[in-house]
Amino acid sequence: MALIVQKYGGTSVGTVERIMAVAGRVKRWREQGHQVVVVVSAMSGETDRLVGLAREIQPLPEPRELDVLLSTGEQVTIALLSMALQAQDCPARSYTGAQVHILTDSAHNKARIRDIDGARVRADLDAGRVVVVAGFQGIDEQGDITTLGRGGSDTSAVAITAALKADECQIYTDVDGVYTTDPRVEPKARKLDRITFEEMLEMASLGSKVLQIRSVEFAGKYRVPLRVLSSFEEGEGTLITFEENAVEDAQISGIAFSRDEAKLTVLGVPDQPGVASRILGPIADANIEVDMIVQNIAAHEATTDFTFTVHRNEYERALDILRRTATELGAREVLGDTRIVKISLVGVGMRSHAGIASRMFASLAKEGINIRMISTSEIKISVVVDEKYLELGVRTLHDAFGLERAEVA
Amino acid sequence: MALIVQKYGGTSVGTVERIMAVAGRVKRWREQGHQVVVVVSAMSGETDRLVGLAREIQPLPEPRELDVLLSTGEQVTIALLSMALQAQDCPARSYTGAQVHILTDSAHNKARIRDIDGARVRADLDAGRVVVVAGFQGIDEQGDITTLGRGGSDTSAVAITAALKADECQIYTDVDGVYTTDPRVEPKARKLDRITFEEMLEMASLGSKVLQIRSVEFAGKYRVPLRVLSSFEEGEGTLITFEENAVEDAQISGIAFSRDEAKLTVLGVPDQPGVASRILGPIADANIEVDMIVQNIAAHEATTDFTFTVHRNEYERALDILRRTATELGAREVLGDTRIVKISLVGVGMRSHAGIASRMFASLAKEGINIRMISTSEIKISVVVDEKYLELGVRTLHDAFGLERAEVA
Repeated sequence: MALIVQKYGGTSVGTVERIMAVAGRVKRWREQGHQVVVVVSAMSGETDRLVGLAREIQPLPEPRELDVLLSTGEQVTIALLSMALQAQDCPARSYTGAQVHILTDSAHNKARIRDIDGARVRADLDAGRVVVVAGFQGIDEQGDITTLGRGGSDTSAVAITAALKADECQIYTDVDGVYTTDPRVEPKARKLDRITFEEMLEMASLGSKVLQIRSVEFAGKYRVPLRVLSSFEEGEGTLITFEENAVEDAQISGIAFSRDEAKLTVLGVPDQPGVASRILGPIADANIEVDMIVQNIAAHEATTDFTFTVHRNEYERALDILRRTATELGAREVLGDTRIVKISLVGVGMRSHAGIASRMFASLAKEGINIRMISTSEIKISVVVDEKYLELGVRTLHDAFGLERAEVA
Repeated sequence: MALIVQKYGGTSVGTVERIMAVAGRVKRWREQGHQVVVVVSAMSGETDRLVGLAREIQPLPEPRELDVLLSTGEQVTIALLSMALQAQDCPARSYTGAQVHILTDSAHNKARIRDIDGARVRADLDAGRVVVVAGFQGIDEQGDITTLGRGGSDTSAVAITAALKADECQIYTDVDGVYTTDPRVEPKARKLDRITFEEMLEMASLGSKVLQIRSVEFAGKYRVPLRVLSSFEEGEGTLITFEENAVEDAQISGIAFSRDEAKLTVLGVPDQPGVASRILGPIADANIEVDMIVQNIAAHEATTDFTFTVHRNEYERALDILRRTATELGAREVLGDTRIVKISLVGVGMRSHAGIASRMFASLAKEGINIRMISTSEIKISVVVDEKYLELGVRTLHDAFGLERAEVA
């Protein structure tokens, strides 16, 4: 018998029929002898409907009141799912975030969980009940309702798993697991049975939208075993583990990519100590996040070229700021490009395998794909290429590293 | 400066535009120097929508979970109204029933308020904020969400008025006050400036739907001054007072009526001690409420005729039970009639004025209206007449007691 925390997102509970289906799935786990805590999101569309009502009143609604409003979405789902379980003769009881004391800080709309009191949940589990908890929400020390921000239900599930010392946190989504890359780009993409936390973090931060990155970080911090599964199909999903992949052939777990990139370059900056911080300081002050950073000594000596990437939404703002900085620094020219993408190889295996980077660059070169920027970390190599090469680049690398082949034990 | 509790029902907050209008009204009270607590219901239609979702899952949803579900309705309204106040530069803060500790018993769907902790509300008022509280809901000693049943927001408002020792509880509705009778039946019906609590209780219990009877009882118990006003028009409304009406001419305050009546009669019951309880006992055991009761000695000596009224919805069940009882008692015959109505004169003035009853009976007789049953209390005389005489009866009495004339000081 295991204690399992399951999380179902908005699509999985989007209609009364789907809520009944979730109840059936939960009931089967319980009938196999497991104790089950279920964390749910608002029914799909409900959060948008509520935000719409608020925006009719105030373009920027007061954060405290927005949380009071939005938290009703999950509260509706917990009540309906508990009824659906009871209708299938499965004892169940619902709790809001406040009722199980999901204590957060007071950062409304993006609160962080500090503590959870699991006593009430444990009492219900011991009494044979399924416990249904509202995700995404908590309560601060003043007793005010808080929310964790979009996707926060994953974080709630992980936090509850940690607080209860449960055996596994199962995240049910509309995909059946984590893939070597996006199957819409590479039809030969293969579902992974397991992936390490570090790899999952890189995949999530690179735009693989299966899990919210905060929940993965949180799970890593508290060493909570996570599993991603489909709400709609049977299957084992993908287990996110703390053990490194023991499989020889698997130097690379997957290929992530992001279309949301934009690149900015300052050419001919007089090269003095502190030039990088003088360029990036004003960008950071404007709350613009910088991703990749590359600095080259330019052809003309005593000057340097400086390139970095930002989210495409921030491009115009960043360009404005950079032009002003460039003038101050006496730089020659500012260039920008929004028609670029980032492709990344991710895998803990590359730690112990040399030659990954060169194989990557060679495969891309063979297809005539020009690399604009390179950045590496211990388990990731990212390249920036022209937007038009996204699909070709992903497929080329997927093939070059043999990702379509099943792992061999 | 006064401390005022205002309650707005579902129609008054039924759309974003109406919520903005309510905010404007609240703001004007505050600008006049008053402290204001606002109690709101769910937006009209929302409770029905939620009940509909629950019924799709379970025909009889579990009461605890139904309360978790329904309480979201008011929670949405408090957030939106607080935003609307803030959008109009009026500081405001919302609270759920749980957050201001509206402690109730655990009778889900029909809980009764036991206590309210006004400390948090008082602190906000002292800080210059309007406080917006969710009506209809509370929390029991286990921390479970409860609701007070339909119309419970009135009761919430009265309870909060009592807890805060506020100066007045204003109930905003879609009518502009309490009338001498239903203006749809008697166009000459006149709005009353004031009415006593006892009269209001009788009016409410007789089907005048302006206020929920429980809230009137509650207000009477805690001596909370209530005022009924329109959400849509300006005006003083009707004040419900503890002082008896000092105006000479006003023996009668109003005429209430009810179409929901049904009459049952047992003829020729052998007259023995305890016969009334033997007839009504099985009716009470079936949880059927009996309203008027009349017993006559029948023409045949040693037998009695026994008549009582029930709600029309309970008629068939009551008739079944009564037939069985009649057989056991050896009664001659059971008769029933659902085509009857009850018309009542209500007024504290009748205590000190003789001749009210005879004037009432004479006026009805003059119009050829046959009285089937009579029942009296200290401030009310009720008659049962054929359904077809409802309008004629109400108008005749309204005229006979001069109710269309304004009260003279």
